[in-house]
Amino acid sequence: MSDLPKRIEIHEEGPREGFQIEAGPISTADKVRFCEALAETGLLDVQCVSFVDARRVPGMADADEVARAIHQKPEVHYTGIALNLRGYERAVQSPLHITGGIQMSTSNTFSIHNTNKNNAETLIEQRRQLEFFRAKAIPVESAIVMTAFGCNFEGAIAPGTVRDCVGELLALADEFDVKLDRVRIADTVGWASPLGVQRVVGAIREKWPDLKLALHLHDTRGTGMANALMGLQMGIWSFDSSCAGLGGCPFAGHKGAAGNICTEDLVFMAEEMGIETGINLDALIECARMAETIVGHQLPGKVMHGGSLTKFRTGAH
Amino acid sequence: MSDLPKRIEIHEEGPREGFQIEAGPISTADKVRFCEALAETGLLDVQCVSFVDARRVPGMADADEVARAIHQKPEVHYTGIALNLRGYERAVQSPLHITGGIQMSTSNTFSIHNTNKNNAETLIEQRRQLEFFRAKAIPVESAIVMTAFGCNFEGAIAPGTVRDCVGELLALADEFDVKLDRVRIADTVGWASPLGVQRVVGAIREKWPDLKLALHLHDTRGTGMANALMGLQMGIWSFDSSCAGLGGCPFAGHKGAAGNICTEDLVFMAEEMGIETGINLDALIECARMAETIVGHQLPGKVMHGGSLTKFRTGAH
Repeated sequence: MSDLPKRIEIHEEGPREGFQIEAGPISTADKVRFCEALAETGLLDVQCVSFVDARRVPGMADADEVARAIHQKPEVHYTGIALNLRGYERAVQSPLHITGGIQMSTSNTFSIHNTNKNNAETLIEQRRQLEFFRAKAIPVESAIVMTAFGCNFEGAIAPGTVRDCVGELLALADEFDVKLDRVRIADTVGWASPLGVQRVVGAIREKWPDLKLALHLHDTRGTGMANALMGLQMGIWSFDSSCAGLGGCPFAGHKGAAGNICTEDLVFMAEEMGIETGINLDALIECARMAETIVGHQLPGKVMHGGSLTKFRTGAH
Repeated sequence: MSDLPKRIEIHEEGPREGFQIEAGPISTADKVRFCEALAETGLLDVQCVSFVDARRVPGMADADEVARAIHQKPEVHYTGIALNLRGYERAVQSPLHITGGIQMSTSNTFSIHNTNKNNAETLIEQRRQLEFFRAKAIPVESAIVMTAFGCNFEGAIAPGTVRDCVGELLALADEFDVKLDRVRIADTVGWASPLGVQRVVGAIREKWPDLKLALHLHDTRGTGMANALMGLQMGIWSFDSSCAGLGGCPFAGHKGAAGNICTEDLVFMAEEMGIETGINLDALIECARMAETIVGHQLPGKVMHGGSLTKFRTGAH
């Protein structure tokens, strides 16, 4: 395991994932309280809301209010996302840390189903967005390749296809003189196995050895943490995850299918392997339990139910 | 990943784990139906019941009846376990495939709490059992080292301690001219990380390179599947697991903590990595859904909720 990183960074997506999908209603105060608690754990990047149409996502109707109410700590990025220019117009009015992103799916069919645009049209749309980001002086932080391990419409995806998408996104960034912080490889519909992670990351690394890659993994089929382990073994040190496993996968075959991998489980695994996260696990577990109380039902995280090992190690039990 | 096995064997413990811990009551007919369905999936080893005191484990009150009612397929081992000689006396009267086992915990304190015997007394008890197995012509199949990765009483366990326990169990088997099929390394209270699996398996391998090791993993803290991946990478090809993740961990800090790793999630991961299991994943997923119906609440398995990839691959969706 010589390629293991010494330290990882985690982009927390729990509030946005959770408030978006939970039947709710969840009070604005609870949303704010949860985001603020997460920022006390050592997490440096907390995705709080998405600026989307409230008629389509009722849980995000109070996104502007949540964004304004959060007491921000200076060292933490409280972020919000937008899916189109209208969303970005709202986002930049908020006090959140708003960055732009560019994206592409490996699967033309998925793109059409997801956004009503094929991949060629998506590229045109990305250019319009990049022009907007430039005009508004919004920094562009990351690119994301969606359905990087498989697609419910097009089936298995060859690692070379993912590599080609990365190439297109890098070329697009170059066109706009954008220096991306990282390229995120997303298992959007939960197809990844550890072998897939190894192959996809390997294919990209071969072409761009110094490109910073991040993994966005879902636990739809139980392999999420094993996929993260393979990511670590491949030297990946940037992950997206979700406190308590908040979220859920709308593309899965059954309701109640798991979404993003769980932040505190990832932190537990990393720290137990001697990989620093900068995060206080026990404080994060308390956040996960707060999330369960707020949504009113059990959430998929494991270490929040099993408990950390701290008390056993210190003999305080 | 050059040490990956080509094929793994799985010892299914779901019925025994589940019926033992579920509040129930679960009808005898449902228990029988579930065991029989599991045996149709390609699983060759199904642990159906434990022969324990019904006053302590009410869910096992009908163990003898369940054992008699199962229609057995000739190629499948339908097994039952016992914790003491009284239990074995009942077990050998049943039509199940009964084998003996020997066991030891790395932690003296755990042994005392678990069985009221320290490790020295446990060895004496094991000798009595081995004499009984010999007298009754019960084959002795496996040894198990419990709390092999950590203990809630004694904290972290050094890999050398686990290796010493394996040595004691092998010596004990030798004393009785017993040839063990495998030595099971158990994460009894959910302490294992992938690094721990690597170190413990490595320490044992160094001393006995040809010893067949099996992993008995719990998902108490979310690392179960990642630990299984590390086991595969270390060349382990024998696993204990539980359909639907039936079971649960009575030692965890919170009620509802996860027990054994989930069989169909393990099968999914292995098959996606090109490792044969001999198991029909879709049939096993149906068993997991049957288990949820029987127990009347959601179970921790993931791929049963996400769905397999079969229909997407065949284009049948």
